[in-house]
Amino acid sequence: MADRKLVLLIADGLADRPVIDYDYKTPLEYANTPNMDRLAKGGLVGQLDPISPGVRPGSDVANLALLGYDPARFYTGRGALEALGAGIDLGPNDIAFRANFATVDDDFRVLDRRAGRIKKGASKLAKVVDDVKIDGVHGVKLIFKATTDHRGVLVLRGEKLSRMVSDVDPKEEGLKVGTARATDGSEEAKRTAQALNEFVKRSHEALREHPLNTQRVSDDEPAANIVITRGAGTMPALPSLKSRNDLRGACIAGTAMIKGLALAAGLDLVDVKGATGGFSTDYEAKAKATIEAAKDKNFILVHVKAPDLAGHDKDFKGKVKIIEELDGLVGSLIDEVDIGSNYVALTADHTTSVYSGEHTGDPVPIVIGGPDVPASRVTKLSEAAAARGNLGRIRGLDLMPILTDVIGRSRLYGS
Amino acid sequence: MADRKLVLLIADGLADRPVIDYDYKTPLEYANTPNMDRLAKGGLVGQLDPISPGVRPGSDVANLALLGYDPARFYTGRGALEALGAGIDLGPNDIAFRANFATVDDDFRVLDRRAGRIKKGASKLAKVVDDVKIDGVHGVKLIFKATTDHRGVLVLRGEKLSRMVSDVDPKEEGLKVGTARATDGSEEAKRTAQALNEFVKRSHEALREHPLNTQRVSDDEPAANIVITRGAGTMPALPSLKSRNDLRGACIAGTAMIKGLALAAGLDLVDVKGATGGFSTDYEAKAKATIEAAKDKNFILVHVKAPDLAGHDKDFKGKVKIIEELDGLVGSLIDEVDIGSNYVALTADHTTSVYSGEHTGDPVPIVIGGPDVPASRVTKLSEAAAARGNLGRIRGLDLMPILTDVIGRSRLYGS
Repeated sequence: MADRKLVLLIADGLADRPVIDYDYKTPLEYANTPNMDRLAKGGLVGQLDPISPGVRPGSDVANLALLGYDPARFYTGRGALEALGAGIDLGPNDIAFRANFATVDDDFRVLDRRAGRIKKGASKLAKVVDDVKIDGVHGVKLIFKATTDHRGVLVLRGEKLSRMVSDVDPKEEGLKVGTARATDGSEEAKRTAQALNEFVKRSHEALREHPLNTQRVSDDEPAANIVITRGAGTMPALPSLKSRNDLRGACIAGTAMIKGLALAAGLDLVDVKGATGGFSTDYEAKAKATIEAAKDKNFILVHVKAPDLAGHDKDFKGKVKIIEELDGLVGSLIDEVDIGSNYVALTADHTTSVYSGEHTGDPVPIVIGGPDVPASRVTKLSEAAAARGNLGRIRGLDLMPILTDVIGRSRLYGS
Repeated sequence: MADRKLVLLIADGLADRPVIDYDYKTPLEYANTPNMDRLAKGGLVGQLDPISPGVRPGSDVANLALLGYDPARFYTGRGALEALGAGIDLGPNDIAFRANFATVDDDFRVLDRRAGRIKKGASKLAKVVDDVKIDGVHGVKLIFKATTDHRGVLVLRGEKLSRMVSDVDPKEEGLKVGTARATDGSEEAKRTAQALNEFVKRSHEALREHPLNTQRVSDDEPAANIVITRGAGTMPALPSLKSRNDLRGACIAGTAMIKGLALAAGLDLVDVKGATGGFSTDYEAKAKATIEAAKDKNFILVHVKAPDLAGHDKDFKGKVKIIEELDGLVGSLIDEVDIGSNYVALTADHTTSVYSGEHTGDPVPIVIGGPDVPASRVTKLSEAAAARGNLGRIRGLDLMPILTDVIGRSRLYGS
């Protein structure tokens, strides 16, 4: 068998539930998707439970599972994946956090968890935060880096720290900024919580009088006057996809968490101008980068964030539009990667319901197209068609073994 | 419920992938199989992952799983199953190996891994090998026995031995015979490797000048002038099918490994003249023996090796022919075992692709026919039809619980 290539396209939050106002159709069913339909008709089609039936997964554990890493064994918190993806060289003792610029009043009550989704000046503010010193806990240094918009990552670096600390982000506006606590009662976690609480206080001191914030207030925009954190994590010890699945891979993604996961799994990151991890991602640029990467790799992970964003925004029509744009990317991949001799797989990491605006625990569709796979004869890709497909109902952790076997790179178990 | 009987027919390597040159059909789809179709139409039909989705299994672990033994817990190497099947009474400390007569040059370079698939005289040569003494390692005796053609089994018997030794068989012609090493670094494994390496050397000394080999060389046939080994194993501790599933069973098989597994699972072996484990197996004799065995047993395991051989030979038409012959056996079983009051199940231990000539990790069809099972209404048994069956997608380890329950012998779990 020649060195067959595989493109795995993960459409974040692609799946959905039927919506009464749209003739009981899901956005995927409603959308015009000739290329996805073509892929489905000639390929393996089924349902995939990212973790197991009914379990409602976050993107971090879902994508871990899709790449073959059992979250029960390998998940060490989202913060570390975000930090890796933001380009921070994470050490084995570092504790990393997802962080937001937020707006608080003088009583530390959160007025806006995202400081008006601040875009301009966030990296300048990040420098100020990065210079914050923690005096109250001996030997703890920090790194702070802005990522996209109001988002950033915080890393606490030092001996005897632990990721077993609670979130400072109250996750709801109107509530006060939380006080981090040790969730396992250990001395290391208490020390970490103390450092984190001091950091949050000092971030407020450093930001509240910053000229950029004075300007924001006078422009009637919420001041980015504090950093709040959640999702403490440590560097995950992932055996590489090369060692496990004999795959030489690359990843094309805009979101920091996926980039971090890809790095941790030993994939090369391909920087694509226009791959933003947002609504306005450049699908053509992603397609070109994929085809270029496939020249010397046999596994290309392509991640698209936009369907999830539309789901969280409860925007049915917006999600339909995004899916139709994504269908163009699928078409380019089918044609350019050449599905006659290589493989294209499409799935989602979870359902993001436009009804609730939240992730749900439903199975998502999985499609695998390429040479010698049995044809499902499904005529339109949808959640309902996936339930009648020829792949049955599999789990996230089954995906990499199946893909590895389909492209002829699996190892024999037994003899 | 009367004492209902169950025949489980395992067709080695039966399943396959669609082949472009044959209208995207698999050999099973292409073959004319009225009896399998009849069984499928009125029975439970589904997909079975021998281990789990995408995992590419060897026959040993796959058949362990099909009989309900989790390989992760019970697999102790193939050699032991082969030795048991060859009629060697394996002790708990014995280390057993699969062995081949092979042809080497004076530098121990392997010219033919199978010594021209030697048939005539192999048992005479085996006696010579069986007489080999290992002097370099104290207290290690050996047993050597020829099985079919160039194949045999070697047993090292003594205290302080281990199965954690690497293969001597280089698995590729043109390479030198390997040196066995301790894979876990233990003293026991080092001792075993030393004994094994001495055995291989002495087998060459004993065989190279043997008159049968002199004759072979003058007949322009490759000399069977060495024994090379692989697949070290120890006696597996399998709880019997009687104790686990309340089944009194017998096994009809030509291949040593399956016979060994059956013995280890507490099944009686039924010797059938003409059940060769090869292409030319006598299906009629197997059918008769099955019907005879079913008189005082309630579980008959019938194993047919031939489809796997055709798959490994990449012979589509040959595999089709074998499947059509096998269909005759299925017809006899349905009629004679009387599917109106007893059960016939048909599955494969894995896919053997005529495209790659290798096992793949695809799911295989499973069919269970007999009284009160729901009818699938599938009209033609195939891999594709299995995906649309009424049994869904199950795993190898699910099979024995399902079969045991279908025939009314399962124990209540809970109360």
